Amino acid sequence: MIEPRVLKGFRDCLPQTMIPKKEIIYKLEKIFESFGFAPIDTPALEYTEILLGKGSGETDKQIYRFLDHGNRDIALRFDLTVPLARFVSEHYSELVFPFKRYHIAPVWRGENTQKGRYREFYQCDFDILGSSSVNADLEILLTIKNGFDAINAGDYIININNRKILNLILEKNKIEDRYKDILRIIDKIYKIGYLKVCEELEQTGLTKEKIKSVMDFLNLDEYSTNFALSGKEIFNFIDKLKINLGEEANPVLELEFIFKAFEKMGILERFALNPAITRGLDYYTGIVFESFILDRVGFGSVCSGGRYDNLTGLYSKNVVPGVGASFGLDRLLALIEDKGKIKNSQTKTDLLIFNLSEEFESILFYQEAARFFRENGLNVEINYEKQKFVNQFKNAERKGLEYVAIAGEEEIKNNKFNLKNIKTGVEQKFLTKEQIINIIKGIR
Amino acid sequence: MIEPRVLKGFRDCLPQTMIPKKEIIYKLEKIFESFGFAPIDTPALEYTEILLGKGSGETDKQIYRFLDHGNRDIALRFDLTVPLARFVSEHYSELVFPFKRYHIAPVWRGENTQKGRYREFYQCDFDILGSSSVNADLEILLTIKNGFDAINAGDYIININNRKILNLILEKNKIEDRYKDILRIIDKIYKIGYLKVCEELEQTGLTKEKIKSVMDFLNLDEYSTNFALSGKEIFNFIDKLKINLGEEANPVLELEFIFKAFEKMGILERFALNPAITRGLDYYTGIVFESFILDRVGFGSVCSGGRYDNLTGLYSKNVVPGVGASFGLDRLLALIEDKGKIKNSQTKTDLLIFNLSEEFESILFYQEAARFFRENGLNVEINYEKQKFVNQFKNAERKGLEYVAIAGEEEIKNNKFNLKNIKTGVEQKFLTKEQIINIIKGIR
Repeated sequence: MIEPRVLKGFRDCLPQTMIPKKEIIYKLEKIFESFGFAPIDTPALEYTEILLGKGSGETDKQIYRFLDHGNRDIALRFDLTVPLARFVSEHYSELVFPFKRYHIAPVWRGENTQKGRYREFYQCDFDILGSSSVNADLEILLTIKNGFDAINAGDYIININNRKILNLILEKNKIEDRYKDILRIIDKIYKIGYLKVCEELEQTGLTKEKIKSVMDFLNLDEYSTNFALSGKEIFNFIDKLKINLGEEANPVLELEFIFKAFEKMGILERFALNPAITRGLDYYTGIVFESFILDRVGFGSVCSGGRYDNLTGLYSKNVVPGVGASFGLDRLLALIEDKGKIKNSQTKTDLLIFNLSEEFESILFYQEAARFFRENGLNVEINYEKQKFVNQFKNAERKGLEYVAIAGEEEIKNNKFNLKNIKTGVEQKFLTKEQIINIIKGIR
Repeated sequence: MIEPRVLKGFRDCLPQTMIPKKEIIYKLEKIFESFGFAPIDTPALEYTEILLGKGSGETDKQIYRFLDHGNRDIALRFDLTVPLARFVSEHYSELVFPFKRYHIAPVWRGENTQKGRYREFYQCDFDILGSSSVNADLEILLTIKNGFDAINAGDYIININNRKILNLILEKNKIEDRYKDILRIIDKIYKIGYLKVCEELEQTGLTKEKIKSVMDFLNLDEYSTNFALSGKEIFNFIDKLKINLGEEANPVLELEFIFKAFEKMGILERFALNPAITRGLDYYTGIVFESFILDRVGFGSVCSGGRYDNLTGLYSKNVVPGVGASFGLDRLLALIEDKGKIKNSQTKTDLLIFNLSEEFESILFYQEAARFFRENGLNVEINYEKQKFVNQFKNAERKGLEYVAIAGEEEIKNNKFNLKNIKTGVEQKFLTKEQIINIIKGIR
């Protein structure tokens, strides 16, 4: 006999996890489609050359890579962005731009496993390609907002910044050549705090003066632990930036445009301007954002993204700017589970019909009733075997069902059922099928 | 620059394919859930030992197998049945039986590519595990019927047989030791015809007499090309089997039960009893079935399956009988496409709002209108850039859109839009948003 086991770092998804996961996915898909994003899919396997591209050492080590039967060097995708770049390059002439796509699919990374990290996990990406307009930035952010509203995981905040502002500040301070270092260090401010950030910046050779100037520009100081600006503070900061960087500084005007739109739409409370958000060493070049569920900030950002100048540089001469984001599906699911919001049920079944007789006429009665219930929108099961009453109850309970319908000889003769709510213990006798439908639909 | 290309035998799914594919999947999921099937997922990668099990030479050659970073011998799943067997063995004590699961996911086989065959394709499996009852067989068949009704791919027929009947016939003829050979040869009857089947049976050493007897039992003769029995013929054949095999022959009684139920339910026309269906060398042990869309029989079976005695034998001592089926998603999609039933659209967008001005107030007007339309169930896009009219039309047309909404200064001032139907050319001026919603919803 072979021992049944999954690989280290992998996991099965049982119904009690898969049902809420699919519900989140479905809700997000509806939102994506309401904004005009269309679904695509790409192969799980690609040429390694395509996936590794310029090849970062980190990815190199994590990728599942091997030779196929034709001795091709192939690998499992480790994200959905590289395949998207290949996809857009390959199908450039077939696509209409701006091309808005979403892609929800698993990716694989052989990284060291730790709590909550898996070697196979879902990504849920949506991007607008072929537009540099701030309107596209605005729409990605509105999509995120609507996504959170649909998922209903709790109050949330979407933190926004624009990397170009840091660029401008560094230019102003004549240290634009230090961009990468400074970005990398500021990105750590939530982990190590303001003072440590200044220390590390000093170690790179920057003068205290320059550091102070940059931090002031960014509204970062040692008295804050949360650097996000909300409401009025946002527009004050923008005014300050305009004074410091000039009235015509485009990144500032774009942020102003976005936040003014939120204000007019009455949704400003869901957004913050956060000069400390940089998205580390990612490939973003403009707006960047991270989102948190307010009573579960510790779970980290559950939706992040930003704007990039050119997606397809590695594979094509066509320049394709874009803006995109990604919901952290597994993280969101863990968070919702942590909040006790997941009904731990092995099934989506609304009603189980007991089996009291294996006579053809009884089975037919149960089946016809099930058909009627299904046609009226209920999910219905029938017990296949005639078992002891108590066992049929036990099974229903173990499965997490709420309602069971019971019909013996007398009920069948009269085309009726007894309905029992297992959770409350309430039993109602001799109901019509219509009454049962109303009870179950009314309470759901 | 790296040439952007997918691997041989793989393909991208563009929106115009992915949209109808997702629609079919969604419809099938709703049907599965209405019968109480719950979704599960398993890892794409498993230990090779688990996937290959007893190891058939064919699978061995096709499987994508390699060593991971920890030197484990692992492989990509080539079907969803082996992972299901592993899953049920591993989680046996957590599951409530009968366990009804569906699983829609890609599998990988490095087989030689031919037209319509890919190395990555979706399987769409649903199984009832832990019941030997004919009620479970009946329910799988009803699920298939409801699935076809939901997909709406055209009239269909579900061919049913029970392998145990062939067993009984061979026992009666004292040639039960030839079961495998005979099954394999009869399975070819649609390809090579009745006479060739008899010839091949003779080559295995069977006498002409025995062959004639078996073929008579099975109602197969040289004058038919379609061996499916429908309506009254079914019950005549069952009566004949009862005379030949005895009134108490359980497989015959079970077929009778199933077809009598279909008759009483008024759905008999969708089912045939087909003694020529064997499902080849698959692991089935009882009922087997194949389904065809009547005006596209050439596409082959689009939903097949059957009953098996024990799913988990390789991994566990627990005996788990079951019955299951699988919709051929890619085949169904190709078939529906062949029928010209697929709207070749790159988007599910109902309405595109033109951009006539990049003024903040105009953009805000477009965005607020889009929000209102979305809240009322429409999928809506906004053009991000102010472009020439003719270009905005061209893009809308290329994308396959039907409606565009246009608002210049005058319309914006009056909170109105002009609505143009690109396909018919009809334009209606100065409509309220509510009027637009009614027009689009009414026509959809």
